[in-house]
Amino acid sequence: MSGDNQYHCPDAKRLQTLKDIANKLRIHCIESTNASNSGHPTSCASAAEVMSVLFFQTMHYSIKEPRGASNDRFVLSKGHAAPILYAAWAEAGLFPTSDLLNLRKLSSDLEGHPTPRLNFVDVATGSLGQGLSCAAGMAYTGKYFDKVGYRVYCMIGDGESAEGSIWEAMAFASQYKLDNLVAIFDVNRLGQSEATSLGHKVDVYKARSEAFGWNTYVVDGHDVEALSRAFYDASQVKNKPTCIIAKTYKGRGIVGVEDQDNWHGKALGDKSAAALQVLKDNIANQGPHELTPMAPEVKAPVISVANIKLSEPPKYDQGQQVATRAAYGTALVKLGKNNDRVISLDGDVKNSTFAIKFKDAFPDRFIECFIAEQNLVGVAIGCETRRRTVPFVSTFAAFLSRAYDQIRMAAISQSNVNFCGSHAGISIGEDGPSQMALEDLAMFRTIPGCTVFYPSDAVSTERAVELAANTPGMCFIRTSRPNVPIIYSATEPFKVGQAKVVRQSDSDKVTIIGSCVTLVEAVKAAEELAKSGVNVRIIDPFTIKPIDAETIIANARKTGGRIITVEDHYAEGGIGEAVSGAVSDCRDITVKKLAVREIPRSGKPMELLDRYGISAACIVKAVNQILSV
Amino acid sequence: MSGDNQYHCPDAKRLQTLKDIANKLRIHCIESTNASNSGHPTSCASAAEVMSVLFFQTMHYSIKEPRGASNDRFVLSKGHAAPILYAAWAEAGLFPTSDLLNLRKLSSDLEGHPTPRLNFVDVATGSLGQGLSCAAGMAYTGKYFDKVGYRVYCMIGDGESAEGSIWEAMAFASQYKLDNLVAIFDVNRLGQSEATSLGHKVDVYKARSEAFGWNTYVVDGHDVEALSRAFYDASQVKNKPTCIIAKTYKGRGIVGVEDQDNWHGKALGDKSAAALQVLKDNIANQGPHELTPMAPEVKAPVISVANIKLSEPPKYDQGQQVATRAAYGTALVKLGKNNDRVISLDGDVKNSTFAIKFKDAFPDRFIECFIAEQNLVGVAIGCETRRRTVPFVSTFAAFLSRAYDQIRMAAISQSNVNFCGSHAGISIGEDGPSQMALEDLAMFRTIPGCTVFYPSDAVSTERAVELAANTPGMCFIRTSRPNVPIIYSATEPFKVGQAKVVRQSDSDKVTIIGSCVTLVEAVKAAEELAKSGVNVRIIDPFTIKPIDAETIIANARKTGGRIITVEDHYAEGGIGEAVSGAVSDCRDITVKKLAVREIPRSGKPMELLDRYGISAACIVKAVNQILSV
Repeated sequence: MSGDNQYHCPDAKRLQTLKDIANKLRIHCIESTNASNSGHPTSCASAAEVMSVLFFQTMHYSIKEPRGASNDRFVLSKGHAAPILYAAWAEAGLFPTSDLLNLRKLSSDLEGHPTPRLNFVDVATGSLGQGLSCAAGMAYTGKYFDKVGYRVYCMIGDGESAEGSIWEAMAFASQYKLDNLVAIFDVNRLGQSEATSLGHKVDVYKARSEAFGWNTYVVDGHDVEALSRAFYDASQVKNKPTCIIAKTYKGRGIVGVEDQDNWHGKALGDKSAAALQVLKDNIANQGPHELTPMAPEVKAPVISVANIKLSEPPKYDQGQQVATRAAYGTALVKLGKNNDRVISLDGDVKNSTFAIKFKDAFPDRFIECFIAEQNLVGVAIGCETRRRTVPFVSTFAAFLSRAYDQIRMAAISQSNVNFCGSHAGISIGEDGPSQMALEDLAMFRTIPGCTVFYPSDAVSTERAVELAANTPGMCFIRTSRPNVPIIYSATEPFKVGQAKVVRQSDSDKVTIIGSCVTLVEAVKAAEELAKSGVNVRIIDPFTIKPIDAETIIANARKTGGRIITVEDHYAEGGIGEAVSGAVSDCRDITVKKLAVREIPRSGKPMELLDRYGISAACIVKAVNQILSV
Repeated sequence: MSGDNQYHCPDAKRLQTLKDIANKLRIHCIESTNASNSGHPTSCASAAEVMSVLFFQTMHYSIKEPRGASNDRFVLSKGHAAPILYAAWAEAGLFPTSDLLNLRKLSSDLEGHPTPRLNFVDVATGSLGQGLSCAAGMAYTGKYFDKVGYRVYCMIGDGESAEGSIWEAMAFASQYKLDNLVAIFDVNRLGQSEATSLGHKVDVYKARSEAFGWNTYVVDGHDVEALSRAFYDASQVKNKPTCIIAKTYKGRGIVGVEDQDNWHGKALGDKSAAALQVLKDNIANQGPHELTPMAPEVKAPVISVANIKLSEPPKYDQGQQVATRAAYGTALVKLGKNNDRVISLDGDVKNSTFAIKFKDAFPDRFIECFIAEQNLVGVAIGCETRRRTVPFVSTFAAFLSRAYDQIRMAAISQSNVNFCGSHAGISIGEDGPSQMALEDLAMFRTIPGCTVFYPSDAVSTERAVELAANTPGMCFIRTSRPNVPIIYSATEPFKVGQAKVVRQSDSDKVTIIGSCVTLVEAVKAAEELAKSGVNVRIIDPFTIKPIDAETIIANARKTGGRIITVEDHYAEGGIGEAVSGAVSDCRDITVKKLAVREIPRSGKPMELLDRYGISAACIVKAVNQILSV
């Protein structure tokens, strides 16, 4: 934040330079999208003055260290305007402007939409409406964890402001008084396929922004002086985030294209020559400009997020019954004791997910995000950028489906956010299908680099939480509602991708693979089967991704090549398909899958397990059937 | 809509009866949740007067035909208040109040959250924030398709109003002037784990509602007279939906519990006796009340949504190159010609998904939902209730992930909405990973009863669209950006679950399974392999769910039991796992999976297919490798 509390208007020369830079940015966008013969030059053109003022008048940052912890942050929520983001960094001196012509080439990191493959991008954007939540997470981190005055700017397209996630973020930012956050709505009137629903009704934007608790200015988004002033004024406001409603024109400054329909996402082609000439003619100083970015004025603390351990090992009695969701909360507190950068976020179900244990222990490191899962995930992604925190996000696993697009984008953002989804499957019982996660394993397994933990008792849950904190990429931990017995000793070592054989004999006929509640059922089935002289082997996979193919294949081969999987999840994309996928090369192994195959109902957990085919009795039946063939 | 344009206040006796009914509803909720020892009596108690007035003073509906087309509709967005919905219908006479004690039992349809297993429920709720979009879809259908005056009421919890999807729906409803829609915000101040972010700040709710374009009233939500008046006033307002901000207290009327923390989602247990006594004492007339629901005043048109056919068969030349997304638009127009209840909804990408063809042909049956995919899906679900329309929802397949929770809930709602997700996979090229759907097959495959089409040319795409319109349950059609050759004749018959063998010989060594762009690559690979004397068989699965296990197994056995799958999708949950799951019982068949296994980049489509392992060259390599073992 500026230490100065009086506004100094840039002098005439500087204002002209800012205008010149805006037009230079436009020229780069036209040329780079022409080179790639695709892209969004008109969406860039509307934002040119905002980008010029932000990068050369307002923000403090280092081009030597674009991801430096003390820099102001910028998030381009309207990711399709990537060319102007790249052009701004090039004009700031990070790389030669000639590189811009490599836009969208396979050999270049200057992709169609920004990703953190570029060292000046924190979060991938391009699925619209997500940037503000991430920016809010950065601002929250700055204000409450780093406790220094770097500022966060987020540019939002007017079209994407129709996304509800924007309004979740608006509510969050005012709730937490994020006065270090500035949102810029680039109200250029036109969407992709037609005008936006609000067109140029800037007063409606203003009313919505104010109703959501933001300090709000309406400005001419092509007036560098007005923008400069608005950003300064924003820096002086306490306890409220600021929203700048910038009235702009799509394709601004591009002759014959400005404010016209049917120019979304197209290189200019034939229109370029004339447009470029006009833009060049409007530049007062044709040579390189003399503005350099202002260095950061603040110093973010040095921190470490590596090698985070449980403060003490799991401590349970053999035979004790503990829900894995409860163990999640216990483990989170132990990590929190060990490292003050571990944070917890939840969506008003903390007393169900047991994140409340963390809140009780470390209230300053808990973020209540209320019932807004998209923003919950986006804030966590923002908090984790520049590796400032180790976030654990919890809600019912079913409700993480609300944020699947954010989770998908988080992988592109190279995020290390950890997720805990509680209340998995039909074993929650009476609340019924809306609350039962039966697709969460499928959902997280698709995510490249995501580690999917499905611990079977409290001990392994604590270890899963510990491993998640230290495993690169995203992690998902699936927890369950019912109490389940402790099966591992406190000293049992756990590793990602390492399954446990929890029951075996020399005469096993079938290998059964289950997790948590279905592992419990498998053990019951094994005891029942043993009475009739049939021995079965039982495997706890611990992680469903990566799945321990080696252990599974080796054990299956010792049990006649027969595998039965049993899971509290739909038949697609979960344990069964992970296992059949893992053994699909082996001619000597078959897999039979027990899973939930229809929309379940409300009922008692054990009734439901039986009705939907995943109880001990169902396993016994499946084993007998497979052996009778 | 009331034909009367002057408000008649209910007389004192009727007002007392409405109060009595409210307290009877409270009693039912306490007793039923006590019987199930779970549920949300306090969330019901805050809504008691609203329910009483709606069901016995305001709404017009038939208990003989609870899903009658001419009835007013009610959506309980705060689905956890299910017991009071059930109690209201019981008090209205639909079933004996004694049935309420079966709440949450496996043997009863009175589940923990409402589902359409009950004949008075249109959409399942319980994942919060979704009801208003569905209600808006019903209201849109009433106003623009049925063109009669039934009205739609939606009760929203204050906690769930933090969900962005609510604000997407708020924007949609005012945009389309849905004056037949009334939202009631039950502002009871308390969430699950703490107070809501806004508590009792009803003025903030009012400002937000008005900023989003709604006619808004703030009322005492426990005053039956005020509520009665507000609902009447709402019926007189033209061109704006009405929002009633009802200030209420959680647990209202329950002694020792009202407005207290830590009473969310709990049966009252010990607290019941005293509370019930007070409630009973407050009822003036202890006997059965005399109010009966008012019959519908309007008559919805008789329509048919069955047996919808393409108006003319597919018409392409052999060798023509057509994108499947373009064929989607063509087919949609042909269905639209054949049946005027076919509608199309899109999220400002209609010129990319080709839904624009439908809009051009039938502008009155196209709904532009702008960039708000959750509401897009919710509106479609609402439009489809009571089988009033056959909706086709289109956007980029990647962005359907934004509405995964709505899609999950739609299955519980027994919806028949059809989805088309375009721009599947890396073959979109330069736009990069944020725009590439690589998890959509996994996502839709998990949904019980969902049919997943992945057509490989324009002919089969048209047939997929036709089949989708007539297939019960939800359908997903995956389309692609690039042009691909026509491979089927116009008369080729297609069936759900029936694969096509598109290339075969007597000496095939491997069966290759691919769809659309990867089927094209497989054919190229086959031609290349044939040059070196290696013949391969190629299968187009057409539907990925259900997958045609019989055809796949029979053909695989004729090719040495060797299958290679190749898909423009991540390795998890897509074609490869569908196929390996389908053959997991067969000891004589192996499956090798070619799929995208990391976050892709921007580049030219063919470059990307090669880089990420799913091009013809990669298939040739995989075949040679598998045959060399």
